[in-house]
Amino acid sequence: MHQLRKDPILSRWVAVLSESLSPADYPQPPQQPAEDSCPLCAGRESETPPEITSVTGDDGRWRARVLPSFKPILVPEGDLGRRGYGMYDAMNSVGANEIIVETPDHNARPEDMGPEQVMAVLELYRKRLIDIQSDERIRHVLVCKNSGSEAGSGLTHQHSEIIATPVIPLRMKTELDGAKAYYSYKERCIYCDIIDEELRVGNRLIMESERFVAFCPYAPKYPFEFWVAPKEHSCSYEDISGGDLADLSGLLASTIKRMRAMLGEPSYNYVVHTAPNNVPRRDRRHTLGDDFHWHIEVVPRLQKASGFEWGSGFYVVPTRPEDAAEFYRRSDA
Amino acid sequence: MHQLRKDPILSRWVAVLSESLSPADYPQPPQQPAEDSCPLCAGRESETPPEITSVTGDDGRWRARVLPSFKPILVPEGDLGRRGYGMYDAMNSVGANEIIVETPDHNARPEDMGPEQVMAVLELYRKRLIDIQSDERIRHVLVCKNSGSEAGSGLTHQHSEIIATPVIPLRMKTELDGAKAYYSYKERCIYCDIIDEELRVGNRLIMESERFVAFCPYAPKYPFEFWVAPKEHSCSYEDISGGDLADLSGLLASTIKRMRAMLGEPSYNYVVHTAPNNVPRRDRRHTLGDDFHWHIEVVPRLQKASGFEWGSGFYVVPTRPEDAAEFYRRSDA
Repeated sequence: MHQLRKDPILSRWVAVLSESLSPADYPQPPQQPAEDSCPLCAGRESETPPEITSVTGDDGRWRARVLPSFKPILVPEGDLGRRGYGMYDAMNSVGANEIIVETPDHNARPEDMGPEQVMAVLELYRKRLIDIQSDERIRHVLVCKNSGSEAGSGLTHQHSEIIATPVIPLRMKTELDGAKAYYSYKERCIYCDIIDEELRVGNRLIMESERFVAFCPYAPKYPFEFWVAPKEHSCSYEDISGGDLADLSGLLASTIKRMRAMLGEPSYNYVVHTAPNNVPRRDRRHTLGDDFHWHIEVVPRLQKASGFEWGSGFYVVPTRPEDAAEFYRRSDA
Repeated sequence: MHQLRKDPILSRWVAVLSESLSPADYPQPPQQPAEDSCPLCAGRESETPPEITSVTGDDGRWRARVLPSFKPILVPEGDLGRRGYGMYDAMNSVGANEIIVETPDHNARPEDMGPEQVMAVLELYRKRLIDIQSDERIRHVLVCKNSGSEAGSGLTHQHSEIIATPVIPLRMKTELDGAKAYYSYKERCIYCDIIDEELRVGNRLIMESERFVAFCPYAPKYPFEFWVAPKEHSCSYEDISGGDLADLSGLLASTIKRMRAMLGEPSYNYVVHTAPNNVPRRDRRHTLGDDFHWHIEVVPRLQKASGFEWGSGFYVVPTRPEDAAEFYRRSDA
């Protein structure tokens, strides 16, 4: 079984695989199966692990479906087995890896997926979050999409990933701690304040719908990065209503279409930032709920991180967010 | 002037350039000048900004030299100008960007640089750290090397970079906070404890010299990552003695040569992790010095980060550090 190990200084958990690759196994070849052997395509359902759930159309065929990962790093079986090795800490790689197949069509591009198709995908995110979080061993569920080879995707067929872990990843912990510190000081949600500010100032705004807003953040990590968030406070994505899902689908489909058209169809990632699993700590739900606000962070992969950035974690953004937002607003895609 | 902006949630500072690139300017073309136009080569000294300092050989020619960056993001002139924009925080991009040219020879590969050449470079790191830290506006000086295109380097000629910032980068802050928390609990330096443990257990050890040790960390972020650290406690790289510099040069030249030979001459980065500038806070120097331990982290760039990793900050390491160390030990480069 793979092992989770904790960096004793940063408190960052990493997964160390049980079967080591040797030096000759690097660089790892890209997987990217061609259309005639893609296991995510309609018609090849018998070649995949058993489906977990799906959304079907009026014709009875699936429009989007969830599968266990082909090579899971984290598995649902077994106990956490927390233990020490000398001064270090480890546990079993308990959790879940799942793939959400976003369309039956191998050649569908992100911009070809209309609001209805996007909504099927977003509905599957909601269903899986609710189901996985009933497992008390799971502390965090990450939902993300990696589209294109620069985004680190091994499959060209449009898909999302779910990674459920028994620990809160370092990046999320830093975010939760920052939001909590602001709440302690101001007694307000920092995301609500940011959304109010962006709607008021307007120069980083991309577009808004009835219930959602898309904007370029004031201090992004990457050029043309944007965030999508509900205007009304809510800590958990999975509490979203059916009407809000439809609204969000329209906004997300439209902003991604603009991004792809404007920037030459770049690879991109997005990550759903939602509150950690609070089923095991339900009594503290109220506090947790007040200081976090779910949102989606979208990043086009336009440039390699420079050495500067690898080394320092100090990022250089060559396009001002105010200018990026104006390019987005002007885009007629 | 470029601007530093603070992410209000993560407290991460980023640099936003004053002249925005437009969508058509992406992807940014690689710079990588060829030998006949490389500004770092011997004989083209008149084409570079004025040299800051250098190490010269017995023949009076330079062996390694320091230049201001050709396109600095951070500049030494002016005051910090800390200010608010609505709820957000900004300051001027005060600091320094410098390039250390590691050899006069355009075609020298990292493994061609013997201990003497490496020592000239390490000596320049020391000199620049001491000089830059006399500026009280500077909080942190990052010294790093990015070799090869996968490491995000824009120049093929072997060089290192210095980035001096008026803020402590988030990654370093997390590391300092982690080391401090351990010190509060144990009243010992966590790096001293790690070095003792690695020397005792031995299965992640690559090699040791009289005063230094090289090992694969227990929970790395990347496969074949290794750290080099002084066995004796010291918080600041710039306090290194001449004898220790020679010892370190031998160890670093040897481990990098092994890494390059074993893994097919990969791109790589290393970062010198040294205590933040404590000139402005000299009275607290003693405490700062006890809980941090300078070291160098070396990472071969063997694989693109997967979407999993981009999204979650949850890293998958496909080669166990114990196996990686054994490959390093067996290497006869």
